[in-house]
Amino acid sequence: MNGAQALIRTLTGAGLDVCFSNPGTSEMHFVAALDAVPRMRGVLCLFEGAATGAADGYGRMAGRPAATLLHLGPGLANGLANLHNARRAHTPLLAVVGDHATYHRRFDAPLESDIDALAGSVSAWVRRPARSADLAADAAAAVAAAARPPGGVATLILPADVSWSAGAEPAPPVPPRAPAPVPHDVVGAAEAALRGGGPCVILLGGTGVRRAGLEAASRIAEAAGARLLCETFPARLERGAGIPAVSGLAYLAELAAPQLAGARHLILAGAAAPVTFFAYPGRPSSLVPEGCQVHVLAEPGDDVPGALAALADLVAPGVKPVPQPPARPALPDGDLTGESAAAVIGALLPEGAIVSDEANTSGLWLDGATAGAPPHDWLTLTGGAIGQGLPLATGAAVACPERPVLALEADGSAMYTISALWTHAREELDITTIIFSNRSYAILGMELERVGVVATGHAARSLLDLSRPALDFTALAAGMGVPASRATTAGELASQLRRALAEPGPHLIEAVVPPLG
Amino acid sequence: MNGAQALIRTLTGAGLDVCFSNPGTSEMHFVAALDAVPRMRGVLCLFEGAATGAADGYGRMAGRPAATLLHLGPGLANGLANLHNARRAHTPLLAVVGDHATYHRRFDAPLESDIDALAGSVSAWVRRPARSADLAADAAAAVAAAARPPGGVATLILPADVSWSAGAEPAPPVPPRAPAPVPHDVVGAAEAALRGGGPCVILLGGTGVRRAGLEAASRIAEAAGARLLCETFPARLERGAGIPAVSGLAYLAELAAPQLAGARHLILAGAAAPVTFFAYPGRPSSLVPEGCQVHVLAEPGDDVPGALAALADLVAPGVKPVPQPPARPALPDGDLTGESAAAVIGALLPEGAIVSDEANTSGLWLDGATAGAPPHDWLTLTGGAIGQGLPLATGAAVACPERPVLALEADGSAMYTISALWTHAREELDITTIIFSNRSYAILGMELERVGVVATGHAARSLLDLSRPALDFTALAAGMGVPASRATTAGELASQLRRALAEPGPHLIEAVVPPLG
Repeated sequence: MNGAQALIRTLTGAGLDVCFSNPGTSEMHFVAALDAVPRMRGVLCLFEGAATGAADGYGRMAGRPAATLLHLGPGLANGLANLHNARRAHTPLLAVVGDHATYHRRFDAPLESDIDALAGSVSAWVRRPARSADLAADAAAAVAAAARPPGGVATLILPADVSWSAGAEPAPPVPPRAPAPVPHDVVGAAEAALRGGGPCVILLGGTGVRRAGLEAASRIAEAAGARLLCETFPARLERGAGIPAVSGLAYLAELAAPQLAGARHLILAGAAAPVTFFAYPGRPSSLVPEGCQVHVLAEPGDDVPGALAALADLVAPGVKPVPQPPARPALPDGDLTGESAAAVIGALLPEGAIVSDEANTSGLWLDGATAGAPPHDWLTLTGGAIGQGLPLATGAAVACPERPVLALEADGSAMYTISALWTHAREELDITTIIFSNRSYAILGMELERVGVVATGHAARSLLDLSRPALDFTALAAGMGVPASRATTAGELASQLRRALAEPGPHLIEAVVPPLG
Repeated sequence: MNGAQALIRTLTGAGLDVCFSNPGTSEMHFVAALDAVPRMRGVLCLFEGAATGAADGYGRMAGRPAATLLHLGPGLANGLANLHNARRAHTPLLAVVGDHATYHRRFDAPLESDIDALAGSVSAWVRRPARSADLAADAAAAVAAAARPPGGVATLILPADVSWSAGAEPAPPVPPRAPAPVPHDVVGAAEAALRGGGPCVILLGGTGVRRAGLEAASRIAEAAGARLLCETFPARLERGAGIPAVSGLAYLAELAAPQLAGARHLILAGAAAPVTFFAYPGRPSSLVPEGCQVHVLAEPGDDVPGALAALADLVAPGVKPVPQPPARPALPDGDLTGESAAAVIGALLPEGAIVSDEANTSGLWLDGATAGAPPHDWLTLTGGAIGQGLPLATGAAVACPERPVLALEADGSAMYTISALWTHAREELDITTIIFSNRSYAILGMELERVGVVATGHAARSLLDLSRPALDFTALAAGMGVPASRATTAGELASQLRRALAEPGPHLIEAVVPPLG
């Protein structure tokens, strides 16, 4: 068989059976081979960023990689921002990047570019097989590399002739590697910190913010009087009624500082030491308080829940985790604002929902309003590269077709990868998108002041303004086959959201809200 | 003054006064400085690819660089595909990529990534000033590097603290470098080839396809009996009634081969030696016929028109160029197809129009139908990275506000950077967009057969199909403030195009055409 057929059989044999695709000529043999391997599901996206973001959402929810199929260097470039977010999320993900035939590269045809340089910037693993006979083994290694804890982007650069040439056979899967257990002495050091006196903060991240990790961490906090926080932008946070709640470290340094203030010990469980998102004139980059000792209980690739459980058994034997009590806000009346929209969402969020949160400034009230809703997963913008939310929802919905997906999306961010809506419609995915339409890059209006800009004039302000002309997201959605409506009051949002959640398939609601209001 | 202010003053002092912008927090001081330097026009784009493509269109038409303002590595990544096209077009272009503060990078904050690796893949020049005092001199050098013949992408990586810190002063412009004159012996070698007997082909590219180069080349071809061709995807081709016509080398190798068949000498004037766009099983990559000698008369950075004129004076003294006679197709009736749409466009194309051509397979008939229209410029997809056309039109319209711009756009390609329409509306640009809506990746349907795939099934075909659901481009345009209509007959297209051309500001016409029909 040819390389492409052996490649796809190897992938499905390794349990990888979804490929978010935006192919070109150099990928045509891969595309043709899809008919020979019906188990592989090709999902067409209209832009590479919509494909890579979908693979990220899939990997976060399925816990195993999906593939993306991208067209040479420019195709990879278009997918790179969401691969950056996937890298920060430690998502298992296989990027297959079609390339010119091996012998064609030296001719510097128009699409030739430095694929390796781009791939290297986001990938934990990159390989470029030179012969069809090598392709399947490389593909098996790629899947294993993507899945290696904590998960990462593996990039397989696929020359067209390696894809079309015969002489290939499928390769068996490479056995997966388990997360590394955390040694006793490391757990013991964290125990000593907790018992040593002085305020202690436990910062959770990665797999530490799933239910098992949260329950162990809750026991520790309860028994040792430690403060519990999680990283600002977790890849996948399990939360809601019955699950121990954890506050996220604030995005704004001036709010994060009090969360950490006075800590003598900071125990990291799957999270990195906290730093500010951006630098600001005259302010430190590190958020670790002076004199605070940092202890790494578990790296992201370690068995974070296991380490937390071991620590809990030491310091909190017999102590129970403190579950979040069920609670929903009342359905609000009146004006639609970020706050009332959050209350509507909190009141109606279905059990088992997956929330793709790229609401940015409009989402400030979401955390509080949904904390006591039925159990759900919360996916956030891990790498700060906006344009993640709609594609991420695609992938989450493909991974979990039985669960409702909510994409909570800022208007400015939505426009980066708006064509993801077409895939929502084509695949009839059960995704309800709420666009927070405040008609501005509101976060930049805030940041303009925070970075120390004193006076701003018309030229600067106009570059943050999305109101001339106002984007009509109901028209944009209709143009891509997604039924849409516009809400201008809290009551309208509630009735529209209720209807959207009750019907299968995609919907979009444009929620018109004031900036930062 | 701070670095940002000195930077912008240096740019305007060097004649660079337009910045296509998609800023973030790390660029806020740059944005604020725009009010201090009103001569710099900031044009907001909703996606970085829309900004870089606009800068490409501006540079091609203005002959001097515009800037783009991009936000860290992910922002550059999103703009990279159109920077790739700009690189292939030899467009002078300055990319300003905001970065974290110098001291912040080592903290590996979420948006940290390898900007240098990405920038290196598309740039002729990259620099990262470390101090505010160095910034202005680096900016002046960047403008000069971008403008250095034949033109290229210069990338200035701008750390936030270098932007916000005081102690900077504007720097004077670096004197521009002229294209290199071509030595007499090189011109003489081309003369010898022309006189040496045997069929000769002159392949024009770069600045050789502007009026002066075409006139000289026409004289040479006329006097020496040489065949005249131009590169398949010129950055900017001057054409129409009164200008010598030149056939483009065909995109399909099987059509390009007969254009070059039998040539004993191939003279390159601003063009690279011809190669196939993609590799195909069993076919050679080079299009140079066996036994044909290749002569480089002028590299893209040389004075290509000057070299052609010198050669013409040697071989064609007193010979006049052969101008294209004026001719327009009759306005067709009946079905709307790629062919009848081309006739409508040829019948109505206004004098001085700038055409951004990303019509792909639907555009096969455009060349013939518009050849004898009044003089106009034709901009093509130089690097093969689709999603160029709408942004390119933005930049061309900003560069030449007195000229009508036509964006001829394939539906699939349009979706990559569809948000460019919003900037068309916001800036009230005189751009008429025609979307060739054939509801498929038709070129891939063709390529699927050309790469030797014998039988294709449903799975493969469905990945080339854009009909489920059908994209409604009139809704998409309305959602971004661009007045739009749909044409389903040749007569409707004619009346809608006439109206759009008569009114100022942007318009969009969705021309529903059959695939490859």
